[in-house]
Amino acid sequence: MSVLVVGSTALDSIKTPKAENPRLLGGSASHAAVAASFFAPTKLVGVVGKDFPKRYIQLYEKHGLDLEGLQIQDGKTFHWSGEYEVNMNNRQTLATELGVFEHFTPHLPEAYKDTPFVLLANIAPALQHHVLDQMRKPKFVVADTMDLWLNIALADLVSLIKRVDLFVLNDSEAHQLTGEDNVFAALKKLHKMGPRYVIIKKGSHGSILSGPDGNFICPAYPLHKVVDPTGAGDSFVGGLIGYLAKTKGEIDKNLRKAMVYGSVTASFCCEGFGLKKTTLASREAINARVKELKELTRF
Amino acid sequence: MSVLVVGSTALDSIKTPKAENPRLLGGSASHAAVAASFFAPTKLVGVVGKDFPKRYIQLYEKHGLDLEGLQIQDGKTFHWSGEYEVNMNNRQTLATELGVFEHFTPHLPEAYKDTPFVLLANIAPALQHHVLDQMRKPKFVVADTMDLWLNIALADLVSLIKRVDLFVLNDSEAHQLTGEDNVFAALKKLHKMGPRYVIIKKGSHGSILSGPDGNFICPAYPLHKVVDPTGAGDSFVGGLIGYLAKTKGEIDKNLRKAMVYGSVTASFCCEGFGLKKTTLASREAINARVKELKELTRF
Repeated sequence: MSVLVVGSTALDSIKTPKAENPRLLGGSASHAAVAASFFAPTKLVGVVGKDFPKRYIQLYEKHGLDLEGLQIQDGKTFHWSGEYEVNMNNRQTLATELGVFEHFTPHLPEAYKDTPFVLLANIAPALQHHVLDQMRKPKFVVADTMDLWLNIALADLVSLIKRVDLFVLNDSEAHQLTGEDNVFAALKKLHKMGPRYVIIKKGSHGSILSGPDGNFICPAYPLHKVVDPTGAGDSFVGGLIGYLAKTKGEIDKNLRKAMVYGSVTASFCCEGFGLKKTTLASREAINARVKELKELTRF
Repeated sequence: MSVLVVGSTALDSIKTPKAENPRLLGGSASHAAVAASFFAPTKLVGVVGKDFPKRYIQLYEKHGLDLEGLQIQDGKTFHWSGEYEVNMNNRQTLATELGVFEHFTPHLPEAYKDTPFVLLANIAPALQHHVLDQMRKPKFVVADTMDLWLNIALADLVSLIKRVDLFVLNDSEAHQLTGEDNVFAALKKLHKMGPRYVIIKKGSHGSILSGPDGNFICPAYPLHKVVDPTGAGDSFVGGLIGYLAKTKGEIDKNLRKAMVYGSVTASFCCEGFGLKKTTLASREAINARVKELKELTRF
């Protein structure tokens, strides 16, 4: 089965204590769609400007992404600049230039409207709503978000959460949204907001699922060196939904494994700037790390 | 096989945002020895004053602890007062009254010197050395520590680490000791300091083992409500060494399970003030949570 990914397609300039990398391929949809492509045919919906480098289109094509939904508009591509602190857990936005993204409306090509698996990657909740409005009975809808939308578009986000099957957010966002410090207490409150499944991401500490079958504690693949964690959360949900689509969508049976595959796909993302290492991964390399993770958690 | 636990035996007055509890039974040795007692015969070495409540001696006795090594001296029992912040991850020391602990020297009764499993629970590294000096060829020595000793007794601690089989510390201490932010990079450096096995504790995020067979990612038992995390780390190492002693000490074969049993024992500790909930646990209740944790991490 196939996957539809909607989100941001951007150029990221990323500074870390060790290096500076200008105009990398970035954006939630870029990371998520490439991650999903390792498992299932993937359609990408986003917008870029005329300045978007051809080599990034070629990278999308290398991963077999369906680009009918990628709008190329007059103007500049969304550009984000950020800086990571030494421990790579805290980042600061230096500049945000919206460019063509400012007036982006995700129009779905006719052929996209029947896609069974939909990932609403991080983007304004109003746009996530707009995508769902165009879909005809998707089988499984996943939404990701970020703290920005909790701060400036909370009502839209809360009404979106009701419409999705799986809502994914990180631990600090879960705390902000529920007022609960305890992850498991937060999960309970998040369920009451609508979705059948909720996942709280905890960065290098892994992630926690709550669903009809209870909780699953998903480990993170152990990285001895994190080069750039930008896009790790997007790669996680991308790999997750790709794996679910590949396994023909028996959700309860496959969701735990899908999280592990998502976690491993995200580990490649963290090993290089932008998508540099993700694009060099393969299904075999992913499988090998999943096997390793199984051994690392056996008791 | 039996376990020897040396550490502090104290009265703890603990304030949290929700409650105040004066003069609870506390101290690293109290928590660790009671935790170990669920699995193996345990000897306790520590010091208390004449003011030490009789009911706490009875609690030790209820758990079958061998108290020949517990010194009862003229003077006051070590008293620690602390306060936890809302998220229960940060605590502040309000007052420390050393009492009889100030001049404590852990003399081992003759019968203790052949104990195969030795836990040097958190206490000044000079005292941990002094205990090891008295032992005759222990089979397996575990040492725990705290940030205080990194700050005021680093040389003693570094020389102690060389003498133990398993060194246990938390993530912020590992960062302080190695300069490494990444847990796996820190583990590598810690091995080079001497011990065959190293465990880094990450609180509610579980713990990571590094040993001759590689790494093990150990989950924490999911608690929906943490009442008081004081002593959780002590309960973890206590349960761990108790389980190893019970399984007759095939270390490499049993260490992963020992960590899981330690983690579960610590979960009971967090559910009540001081030792209130730990003392109500049972081997059956611990086994049930280990089984649950197995199901929670299956993929």
